[in-house]
Amino acid sequence: MRIKLIIAYDGTNYHGFQSQVNGIAIQDVIESALADLFCEPLRIKSASRTDTGVHAEGNVAVFDVETRIAPSKIALALNARLPEDIRIVDSEEVPGDFHPRFQETVKTYEYRILNRKFPDPMMRNLENHIYYPLDAEKMDRAAQYLVGEHDFASFCSSGYSSKTTVRTIYRAEVIRTGDRISFFITGNGFLYNMVRILAGTLIEIGEGKYPPEEMEKILEARDRSCAGQTALAKGLVLKEIRYPEWERAQEQGPLA
Amino acid sequence: MRIKLIIAYDGTNYHGFQSQVNGIAIQDVIESALADLFCEPLRIKSASRTDTGVHAEGNVAVFDVETRIAPSKIALALNARLPEDIRIVDSEEVPGDFHPRFQETVKTYEYRILNRKFPDPMMRNLENHIYYPLDAEKMDRAAQYLVGEHDFASFCSSGYSSKTTVRTIYRAEVIRTGDRISFFITGNGFLYNMVRILAGTLIEIGEGKYPPEEMEKILEARDRSCAGQTALAKGLVLKEIRYPEWERAQEQGPLA
Repeated sequence: MRIKLIIAYDGTNYHGFQSQVNGIAIQDVIESALADLFCEPLRIKSASRTDTGVHAEGNVAVFDVETRIAPSKIALALNARLPEDIRIVDSEEVPGDFHPRFQETVKTYEYRILNRKFPDPMMRNLENHIYYPLDAEKMDRAAQYLVGEHDFASFCSSGYSSKTTVRTIYRAEVIRTGDRISFFITGNGFLYNMVRILAGTLIEIGEGKYPPEEMEKILEARDRSCAGQTALAKGLVLKEIRYPEWERAQEQGPLA
Repeated sequence: MRIKLIIAYDGTNYHGFQSQVNGIAIQDVIESALADLFCEPLRIKSASRTDTGVHAEGNVAVFDVETRIAPSKIALALNARLPEDIRIVDSEEVPGDFHPRFQETVKTYEYRILNRKFPDPMMRNLENHIYYPLDAEKMDRAAQYLVGEHDFASFCSSGYSSKTTVRTIYRAEVIRTGDRISFFITGNGFLYNMVRILAGTLIEIGEGKYPPEEMEKILEARDRSCAGQTALAKGLVLKEIRYPEWERAQEQGPLA
C-alpha cells in the first residue's frame, strides 16, 4: 500500500530535503528510519525539495510498503526513530496512483523577517534579521500584484528547467506583528527560489529602494536581473500542501 | 566606569548563565569576548543565574572598565565577538554603585507550552511540548492566587538558602493562542526553580489533576511536596528585568 506522510522539520542541520552527494538530506534520515521500522530499504517521493536551511511545517512524501502496522500508527513509530528536528505530523494510506508532485497542488509558504536593531538569538535559524526599518504596508501593497495567473520568469533562479514559468497565486499578504514581518503566499506551484526572490524584492520595496508599483513592471520584464536579491533560506517555511482534486475525490468516497 | 549590559540568549548550548566547573556557561563566553575587546581579564556580575537550557531576552549584567569606547557602542563591539546564540541588546554606563542583584528589581518570565499532538521541530528547544489537552482558562484562574505578597516556600527547590521565601507577584497570567499556551509572571524576585515549579503545578491543574482553587492550599502548605513537578527548563524565558528605584533616579537626573 501507499503511505502519505506529512513532515515538519527544522532545516538548519540538513543539506535540503532531497538526497544528494554532499551532506545529509532530510530524505536520507527519513529513509533510514523507514528501513529500521520495516526492515527493508524504502524510497520516498516528496512534494517539495526544499533547499538547505529551509524549514517545513507540512511537506508531503509517499512510499510503498506491505505491512500490518496501521497506517495512522506509522507517524508515531517513525518519530521514535527520528531526531527531534524532524517530525512526522501525520500518516495515512492513499491510493496507489497518488503522487505528491504530479497532481493538482496548492502550496503555502511563509517568509519570516525580524525587523529591529538586534537579532533574536532564540530565533536565529528561523527568521531573516533586517536591522533597517521596513514599511510592511508598502510590501503588502506590492504583494497584491502577485495574485492571479502570471509569468514569474523574473522570480526564477537561472538553470531551472520547467516547461512553463506561468503560475497562479491565490493569496499574497505581508503582515507586521510588532517587530516581526511575515510574507504569506499561496499558489498552485512555485519556480526554483521563487518565494525567496519574491521576499528579497519585497524587502527592497520595504526599505524604499523602489515603490510598490514596481512589482508589476518586474513581473512584466520576465528577467531575473530586474528582481531583488534571493532572500536568506532560513526565513522560509513551507507551511502546507493541499491536494484539492484528491481531497474532493476523498469526500465523494472511495472509488471501486 | 561601570557598564550595564542587557543580554539575550538561547540557553540550549550552555550550562546556565553563571560560570561553573562543568561545561561552558554564558558568563564564560561573554567574559572571553570582553577580554578580546578590552585586552584585559574582566568579570561580569549578573542579575539572574539562569539554569541550563533556560533562555533570556533581557538578563542584565555589569562590569567595570576604563575605556574610550562609547558605552552605547560596546554592545555592537561585543556582538561581533560573540556566537549567534548570545546577543548584547543594549549597553550603557551606570553609576558605580549600581548592582544588578542587590537593589529593587522587577523581573518578568514567560513559560511556553506547545499543547497539541506533535511537537514543533523548529521550536524543539524553546517550548515544553505537552500532548494531552490543557485547560488554559483553569490555569489562568489558578495563576490569580499567586498575585500579591505570599510565602512561596512550596515552590522552591530544596537546598536553596534565602533569608526569606516571601515574594511579591505583580502579575500572573496564562494566555492560549491557538496550540500555544504562555504563562507570564512578574514579581520582585523569584526563588530557585520557582517559575518552573509554578509552571509544573499549572500544567497539572490544566490537565485536571486538581482544581484551580488548590493553588491557594499549595501556597498555604509551605511544603515543596504539595506542588507539582518542576517543568522542563527549555520552556522558560527571562523576558525583562527592571530597576524601578534606579529608573526613578534616572528620570530625576544624575545626582551630583
